Amino acid sequence: MNSKPLDRHALGQALTRLANASTSDLMRSPQRTLALSAARRIGLTGAPGAGKSTLAGYLALHRAPGRRLGILAIDPSSPRSGGAILGDRIRMDELKGVSQLYIRSIGSRSASDGLSDNLPEMLDLMDEFEFNEVLLETVGVGQVEYAARVQVDTLVLLLLPESGDVVQAMKAGIMEMADIFVINKADLPGAQKMASDIKRISSLARHDEGSWRPSVLLASSSKPESIAALSEEIDRHQAWLDLNDRRKVLRQQRARYRLRRLIERRAGEVIARQDPSFFEAPMVQQLDLALQQIGRKS
Amino acid sequence: MNSKPLDRHALGQALTRLANASTSDLMRSPQRTLALSAARRIGLTGAPGAGKSTLAGYLALHRAPGRRLGILAIDPSSPRSGGAILGDRIRMDELKGVSQLYIRSIGSRSASDGLSDNLPEMLDLMDEFEFNEVLLETVGVGQVEYAARVQVDTLVLLLLPESGDVVQAMKAGIMEMADIFVINKADLPGAQKMASDIKRISSLARHDEGSWRPSVLLASSSKPESIAALSEEIDRHQAWLDLNDRRKVLRQQRARYRLRRLIERRAGEVIARQDPSFFEAPMVQQLDLALQQIGRKS
Repeated sequence: MNSKPLDRHALGQALTRLANASTSDLMRSPQRTLALSAARRIGLTGAPGAGKSTLAGYLALHRAPGRRLGILAIDPSSPRSGGAILGDRIRMDELKGVSQLYIRSIGSRSASDGLSDNLPEMLDLMDEFEFNEVLLETVGVGQVEYAARVQVDTLVLLLLPESGDVVQAMKAGIMEMADIFVINKADLPGAQKMASDIKRISSLARHDEGSWRPSVLLASSSKPESIAALSEEIDRHQAWLDLNDRRKVLRQQRARYRLRRLIERRAGEVIARQDPSFFEAPMVQQLDLALQQIGRKS
Repeated sequence: MNSKPLDRHALGQALTRLANASTSDLMRSPQRTLALSAARRIGLTGAPGAGKSTLAGYLALHRAPGRRLGILAIDPSSPRSGGAILGDRIRMDELKGVSQLYIRSIGSRSASDGLSDNLPEMLDLMDEFEFNEVLLETVGVGQVEYAARVQVDTLVLLLLPESGDVVQAMKAGIMEMADIFVINKADLPGAQKMASDIKRISSLARHDEGSWRPSVLLASSSKPESIAALSEEIDRHQAWLDLNDRRKVLRQQRARYRLRRLIERRAGEVIARQDPSFFEAPMVQQLDLALQQIGRKS
């Protein structure tokens, strides 16, 4: 583990700066070196009420010893910038001796992909601050998971028994994205049936030889052994990524996604600024002019 | 009305060509003159099973006399291109004497906004073929409605009594997009209550002075007078658009949306083609290179 103390104040300020950075700021910022010691990125996603925050808290407490660990919680209702919060997720006395744990809520209101606009840059910042691990907590079904999938190494999908979550997730194509399924609040009726449903569905899905076979776990925040089992499964997936040389591919996917999002955001800004006569020109001229302006570091 | 016969064969071929056109094709195509005699565009949207196709069929039969009228039905499950279909929506004997009615299903599978990728161009083509009116039928809640909203003058939202559609629509912000609400299958229980709910909600929503106040209608395909009432309400909204000089604004919104979508699609294509080393460059260089390639009429 990192022996230097974490400079929470500097990190908090840097995250706030990034949360509010414009697309021009992003273009100006130097390419961050692709650190060899990048933090492991673990995504926790699921519908509202699935128990993500509580599970993330317990998982963090379990994994924090010996690690610098951050939780970034994407919160649709949170304002665009703000200080680090600990919220009600973990009582302060549980955090004693966990001086390397950092928790931050990030607003997502304005981003069209349901994540914070500058999340890729924030995650890189966590690398610069030498985190060993980041838990990314996201809410929602559909678009958000797809965006989150690209940003993390291991995606954990939380489902509630008898919730209809499975049907929703199947429709949105999320079943194919998750590396680990967790039936949370597993003391509720229907948990076992849901687990075997998911196992059946995921065995039906085509899996190439050598690909990761998603695991299905039952969990409950009142059962520490279920948190430990999830933690172990995450380690197993992380080891699989290393063994199969997948980190390079993940990094490339992230780079593609980041550039694409930047162009889309710049296009939106540039096009919104044009006066009506701009659109009387032939399409190819409109496109040329818009592209020139997108590239301008105004 | 247009006295020339409609060349269905030519229209069908041109639509198919457009359905399959690449972004490069779109860039090459000349800007269509913004015809003064553009077709009225009426959107019909709602969740699956709300009865859109049936209602669109009856509405078309009601409005067709004296008009050249097209129905473009965006069908998520339909293949990317295909011939014009009449489907089961209207029996052939009802179509006697309606030689100016044209119906076409268009696949949407690959488009990220839930509409067909080249829908704006297809709608322009309907203008070139001198249609007086186009009904655009779309399925879904959320993203699709937003995309459809931009393409049409009048948006009709179909809801089913006691369906939870209102809650869904409110969440997705669709309530503020519709010009006309139709409670369809209004002989089902709960229709009256839903109508007064929507009226209450829409009276709570802030309306600027002089803005269109959305109307709420009850409809049933077995009641011809309800179809006539919807048709009248559409005419009233169309007249309101003319009176308030809104067509120019609508045209501008469409032009913005079209350029933005083209850039987004091109960005996706260009970025997917890059080899990994491309992403080692600083962000601003990546952006410049990508923008050059987006503008290239490959």
